[in-house]
Amino acid sequence: MSRVNTEPLSGMRDFLPLDVLRRDYVVNTIRRVYQRYGFEPLETPTLERLSTLLGKYGDEGDQLIFRVLKRGEKLEEALARTPTENGVSDAGLRYDLTVPLARVVAEYGSKLPRFFKRYQIQPVYRADRPAKGRYREFYQCDVDIVGSTSPTVEAEVLAAGAEVLQELGFVGREGFQIRLNHRLILHGLMEIAGVPPASEGAALVAIDKLDKIGMDGVRKELAARGIAAETAERLLGTLSAAPDQGLLDWLEEVLKESALGSQGVADLRAVVALSAQGPAAPHLRVDPYLARGLSYYTGPIFEIEFPGFSGSGGGGGRYDGLIGMFSGQSIPACGFSLGLERVILMMEEHGMFPARLDTQPQLLVTQFDEKTAAASLALAHQLRKAGLRVDLYPQIDRYGKQFKYADDRKIRYAALVSPRELSAGVVAVRDLVSGEQVEVPQGELVAWLCERLG
Amino acid sequence: MSRVNTEPLSGMRDFLPLDVLRRDYVVNTIRRVYQRYGFEPLETPTLERLSTLLGKYGDEGDQLIFRVLKRGEKLEEALARTPTENGVSDAGLRYDLTVPLARVVAEYGSKLPRFFKRYQIQPVYRADRPAKGRYREFYQCDVDIVGSTSPTVEAEVLAAGAEVLQELGFVGREGFQIRLNHRLILHGLMEIAGVPPASEGAALVAIDKLDKIGMDGVRKELAARGIAAETAERLLGTLSAAPDQGLLDWLEEVLKESALGSQGVADLRAVVALSAQGPAAPHLRVDPYLARGLSYYTGPIFEIEFPGFSGSGGGGGRYDGLIGMFSGQSIPACGFSLGLERVILMMEEHGMFPARLDTQPQLLVTQFDEKTAAASLALAHQLRKAGLRVDLYPQIDRYGKQFKYADDRKIRYAALVSPRELSAGVVAVRDLVSGEQVEVPQGELVAWLCERLG
Repeated sequence: MSRVNTEPLSGMRDFLPLDVLRRDYVVNTIRRVYQRYGFEPLETPTLERLSTLLGKYGDEGDQLIFRVLKRGEKLEEALARTPTENGVSDAGLRYDLTVPLARVVAEYGSKLPRFFKRYQIQPVYRADRPAKGRYREFYQCDVDIVGSTSPTVEAEVLAAGAEVLQELGFVGREGFQIRLNHRLILHGLMEIAGVPPASEGAALVAIDKLDKIGMDGVRKELAARGIAAETAERLLGTLSAAPDQGLLDWLEEVLKESALGSQGVADLRAVVALSAQGPAAPHLRVDPYLARGLSYYTGPIFEIEFPGFSGSGGGGGRYDGLIGMFSGQSIPACGFSLGLERVILMMEEHGMFPARLDTQPQLLVTQFDEKTAAASLALAHQLRKAGLRVDLYPQIDRYGKQFKYADDRKIRYAALVSPRELSAGVVAVRDLVSGEQVEVPQGELVAWLCERLG
Repeated sequence: MSRVNTEPLSGMRDFLPLDVLRRDYVVNTIRRVYQRYGFEPLETPTLERLSTLLGKYGDEGDQLIFRVLKRGEKLEEALARTPTENGVSDAGLRYDLTVPLARVVAEYGSKLPRFFKRYQIQPVYRADRPAKGRYREFYQCDVDIVGSTSPTVEAEVLAAGAEVLQELGFVGREGFQIRLNHRLILHGLMEIAGVPPASEGAALVAIDKLDKIGMDGVRKELAARGIAAETAERLLGTLSAAPDQGLLDWLEEVLKESALGSQGVADLRAVVALSAQGPAAPHLRVDPYLARGLSYYTGPIFEIEFPGFSGSGGGGGRYDGLIGMFSGQSIPACGFSLGLERVILMMEEHGMFPARLDTQPQLLVTQFDEKTAAASLALAHQLRKAGLRVDLYPQIDRYGKQFKYADDRKIRYAALVSPRELSAGVVAVRDLVSGEQVEVPQGELVAWLCERLG
């Protein structure tokens, strides 16, 4: 038999047991916190109509959609004609979680609560060029509140996101910061500097890159995007005059001539004030440079930053024009997308996962011979009934091999039930780390183990 | 804006919040039990190479694979030539969890423990004709032990599967039964009856249908599949002579002239004996009619039956020839696939889900006006810190609307914090079921609520 390629497809990953257990640990934490905030889960199909997906992510996005081939007669027909990409395919793989949310709101509007507070944690698929940390199948983890324009919505979303990170072990201002800005503040700054309304989007993209390309880079980028040098200098001059403290007061003063800009400042002030008593407060940092590339944001925007590390830990904001895309209604919404893959990477790199997850087996029951196999099984069942996680070695073997297997699986204790132990009414328990072995009376075993295993 | 189709694609489902919470309840139970048995999780990509998938599920299976279109230049090239189904596609959607397991075992063999005990719970995709209860995207939930031929493996798999169903509320022999048979027993029965070896597979498929088409149906089916009438009568005569009790003794006697058949009986006897002390014992029922269609089984086979209801709740068995398909080695394996969709349907139809899942919000904090919004948020955070699941109504509104929203979300209690309550240092808590409203001092609120919410 010739050796076939058994690697996962390019850009895709197999998650071996420890990977899955760690992901589950993170996802369970996220769920627990979001449920504590009153959010409800939603799951949508992997496949969507092409018409649902196309045109929602820009031309580049359309190219990155994995398309599914038509089947049967429809495929034959399509192949028989001059076949085109759109002709031979009729569905695409989920590209993000926002378009499915908009579809669900349009489809089930009246069945949903008046305000739909949903979280959704599912993989999405993008036919992007794979690179370090960039996958073609990766999890998105979104939380959104649909239906209200109140700033308490932003405060709740920020609090829930912050609490997730805190429970995962990102603590204090050094653990993470939440950069905070407002689209109307950015608009006001442009207006004051004299950026023509038609160029605002281009200028935003340039400013958003400050972290990566520095002030000179932004200057070149603005020029390349057709912003007059004088205007660019005015804009950058204002931005670089921003103080470290009292940013909102400073922005209020700077933007007093811009009606929309002033509204943005007032809005953001409300969000910050409403966050004061909650978990996000110590992490907030108003940052007039934060632009977030996506053009659909309409109000406050925010982004998670891990101080000293590049790459964002997630972000979000208010986007009042998007959720109504299928229903033709105007539906306000605000959400936060946690950078799940990035967070897991950070936690792995910084040893933030518990040394032992409480989902891994605690003890191995060994097998001695055919006559005692039933006794081994009975012991395993007895311990499981007490709530312990118990692996049974799956066959009769030399103890040495059984201990090695336990070691490979990071199981510390092994229970021995040979005829000798059975006739003495004891179980021998071996600590595979210390090599120590003690005999524990059958009746005391559960209590003995619970004490040692915590 | 013309109304677009926002339904999920044919055969696909949106899972709204209660659906997801119930699925999570079931999946969490499965995970907890499987982890208690020492199983580890595996997750594989949604997309696999076409070469990995094709030829593994028979011709019919190949037709049911969702194929993914090539992209970019490769697609252009394929479309420019005389395009074919295989030419324009290069990947397919996961069709089951067994082929990915075989691929993983081949790819990571030395990195995996010597015995790989894995569970895997992921959606699979089949371009089948949608029908009631038949979906194009549905969850499979597999547990397998790879690497050992010991009958303790069967006993463990049966025990774990039985314990899952018990923890979900399927109790006693009326809750579910596990039909148990052995491929070698079936072989022996054929041998004794004189079914030619080449026709055994066809005869198996016929016998497997007894439940659905009755004895006469099976007789016709056997004739249609080329089994001589005399042979068929001998086979059915033996089967219908099976006693209600002592089946293994009876089979031992009937099969004493068949070496393989006798081995099957001895094997099954070992599995039953090893299961005696565990949770599967009260549910086991040896059933010589059980054939399970799939040709890859090599040893014991089993299937979950809900007495009085048609359709299986899952099944499995030993299949020693399959896991080595990519590595070219012989790798023994035994597994069980829980019928997750069927189990959820049964639980919904029979009211087996808890009336309130402990993942739904317990209390709604209302909002009175802009001045007290911060106090509402602070109260919500205080209660969440105490571990309660608290929704905050997302804006200022009439209380009536806020209570209605709580009701829609099945939240029983609402907390009111108007200036009156704030100045009195109390929170008014309204029971939305009874309409009763009491004032609780701020400092006593958490204790008061915990008592009522359990």
